[in-house]
Amino acid sequence: MRTSPSLLSLTIDSAVLNLSNIADLSSLPDHIVVDLFLRTLRAGKLNERVLKLFIATGKDEVFSLIRALNIRATVIPVLPTTIKDDEIDIVIGAVRSDLTSFMNEWRPMFSRFHLIIVKDPDLKEELKIPEGFNLDVYEKPHMDQVVGSSTSVFFSGYACRYFGYLVSRKKYIISVDDDCLPARDPKGFVVDAVAHHITNLTTPATPFFFNTLYDPFAEGSDFVRGYPFSLRTGVKCALSCGLWLNLADHDAPTQALKAKQRNSRYVDAVMTVPAGSLVPISGINIAFDREVVGPALVPALKLAGEGKFRWETMEDIWSGLCVKVVCDHLGLGVKTGLPYVWRTDRGDPIASLKKEWEGVKLMEEVVPFFQSVRLPREATTVEDCVVEVANAAKERLGLTDPVFARAAKAMLDWVNLWKSVAYISSSSPAV
Amino acid sequence: MRTSPSLLSLTIDSAVLNLSNIADLSSLPDHIVVDLFLRTLRAGKLNERVLKLFIATGKDEVFSLIRALNIRATVIPVLPTTIKDDEIDIVIGAVRSDLTSFMNEWRPMFSRFHLIIVKDPDLKEELKIPEGFNLDVYEKPHMDQVVGSSTSVFFSGYACRYFGYLVSRKKYIISVDDDCLPARDPKGFVVDAVAHHITNLTTPATPFFFNTLYDPFAEGSDFVRGYPFSLRTGVKCALSCGLWLNLADHDAPTQALKAKQRNSRYVDAVMTVPAGSLVPISGINIAFDREVVGPALVPALKLAGEGKFRWETMEDIWSGLCVKVVCDHLGLGVKTGLPYVWRTDRGDPIASLKKEWEGVKLMEEVVPFFQSVRLPREATTVEDCVVEVANAAKERLGLTDPVFARAAKAMLDWVNLWKSVAYISSSSPAV
Repeated sequence: MRTSPSLLSLTIDSAVLNLSNIADLSSLPDHIVVDLFLRTLRAGKLNERVLKLFIATGKDEVFSLIRALNIRATVIPVLPTTIKDDEIDIVIGAVRSDLTSFMNEWRPMFSRFHLIIVKDPDLKEELKIPEGFNLDVYEKPHMDQVVGSSTSVFFSGYACRYFGYLVSRKKYIISVDDDCLPARDPKGFVVDAVAHHITNLTTPATPFFFNTLYDPFAEGSDFVRGYPFSLRTGVKCALSCGLWLNLADHDAPTQALKAKQRNSRYVDAVMTVPAGSLVPISGINIAFDREVVGPALVPALKLAGEGKFRWETMEDIWSGLCVKVVCDHLGLGVKTGLPYVWRTDRGDPIASLKKEWEGVKLMEEVVPFFQSVRLPREATTVEDCVVEVANAAKERLGLTDPVFARAAKAMLDWVNLWKSVAYISSSSPAV
Repeated sequence: MRTSPSLLSLTIDSAVLNLSNIADLSSLPDHIVVDLFLRTLRAGKLNERVLKLFIATGKDEVFSLIRALNIRATVIPVLPTTIKDDEIDIVIGAVRSDLTSFMNEWRPMFSRFHLIIVKDPDLKEELKIPEGFNLDVYEKPHMDQVVGSSTSVFFSGYACRYFGYLVSRKKYIISVDDDCLPARDPKGFVVDAVAHHITNLTTPATPFFFNTLYDPFAEGSDFVRGYPFSLRTGVKCALSCGLWLNLADHDAPTQALKAKQRNSRYVDAVMTVPAGSLVPISGINIAFDREVVGPALVPALKLAGEGKFRWETMEDIWSGLCVKVVCDHLGLGVKTGLPYVWRTDRGDPIASLKKEWEGVKLMEEVVPFFQSVRLPREATTVEDCVVEVANAAKERLGLTDPVFARAAKAMLDWVNLWKSVAYISSSSPAV
């Protein structure tokens, strides 16, 4: 039932429309000022001048509202709402030679951006790449030239992409495996994974308190009752880990056991992984702020019997644990969830089982290490943090398995490489 | 392209079918034993006898598989797969008198179970409850009789439901607010929130490592690559917090600011909230193992200006932070996500704003307290833990605001009440 609006309500509506003519609100009763303030907000009419008008009332209720809603009197927007196309590199590690269908499927999303394609140095065949992209291709000779043979850093197999991270001159990296195609959402629309990663990176992350309503910055979402207002600004999101429809990112034993299982569950959510909680970040579909956390994405843990299928590798898991520990230490955020990509089938998981055991067993050492490693307060840059993690890994895991000593060495070499080779635009502050 | 199966493959298939006739596998080559083991698992034919047959081979690969897949030689199933209907009480706090449409809408889900309806002691009108349910109604005289007037525990407003938790004689509680109706999933099917809560409580929780594939025990899901096998058994789930379509659980300022916003995003996922991460658990739609964490659900934080709308209360937020801290200490799990309920509109958020400020401001004290409270190792029962939290709250928050001293007192009274009144079946171990 709709009742007629009160005279007071009509007066306040009229005041919202005429705010530009009002010079003083302090004579109004408190509840009218509060009501006017809320209607002004809802009408999208709160600007610098109007905010000052409300602050000038000196009313406690107004100050509470401003604090609680975290309204800031500033001309610089709190959130950057756009990233320019030329701030992004899309990095593709090519572990197979024919990229024709991969590139053509991704053309609508990729063609606006600069691409870096890095060829697995073990791959003998020439790459087949369709026309019409703005791209640079890097192969083994480039790696030898830039890195030389004096380091323990490796770029074979899926790790070739890390060379792209190193030589990129852009702020943001988006990277998708060459066996992934664009996914469709439950309504049948093709998912623009690039756009979604950008949204994840440009909206804040909330690692210090769990929001049951998922990403509070998603359209139609917000913070749940009880979420402290002082934590609602969030922190910078450094990394976005996307997910996989069809073939989920299982290890070889799980894949072997559930050979016919396919992931058809589209979970329409983005989450910040809480601070202090470790997560196995997969490199299949990720994006990150290269200038903020680039050096923490390290090609360091190479299995002795590493193969060319994703479930035979662990380099991204180690790198992801390292990134998460570093982000927790520096107060940066890591998100997971949307966007999905469609992962196509490859490889024989049963044949991979023998290789994979090594990785599965190593995790039982790796996880307690990362769960307990503490970085000193003096480690204030990402490079410092990676060095600390490397030294701790050498000390605490080095004798367990030679693979860890090699990983620690590779991390130190990587930081040095990053310092000497990687490009950081002078316009961006470090962290 | 399908090739003909090899002779070896056919032989192994045949062996899977005839395992009951095989007494010894030790003469087989390693890779055949492994293949046979995996096919046996996939065929669902691994039982006690067959497992012993494989163990008797003494082969390393078999031991690795058993360890990695966490296969246990036990006759007690690791997961209880069913709960009997008579192990559950559905508790409804009646803050309005006419429950007719509420009960009729929930009839298909509720009618199999025993219901406890607790009438808000401030509510004057008689309750209207339709026929056809197995239920007990509790009103103010029952509260006076059981609890007396000598405690600081309060059962007014939404807190009336806690009286139902106290007098229940069942292991599990499911509780839904009286302004919620069954929701529909994106395919249009009515969600059975009761069944979903039961699934959440009877499958393990995984608080010690984040699974990007959400609930690994959901149908069609599993653990992601890199998830340590030693953590895949998970821990007991003590509490399940469901979500809300239509009207999400916002506080009054958010609701006032986004008066027309409705939640239509159905996120098809259940998550374990990681250990160490706090979460504002809402009491609108929850389920918990009463015998395991019952005493930690405390009606303790009553705002001075508390009203009769959800966004004017904080008792469930305080209770939820207490439960989470206790679960983290005792190694129990808390889940959030599915099931959804449909929350109907009530109340005027703008009118609630004045009351709500108190709660919003208190959270800025409450959250740092719960984030830093540490329970001693000697606190091994839920009752011990609640007492520890109460004492710490009194000591550290008591002088900030009298509301906290009262909350601490109520928690201690609640534990005593629970010890003297609450029913624990003798068959269940404490934790």
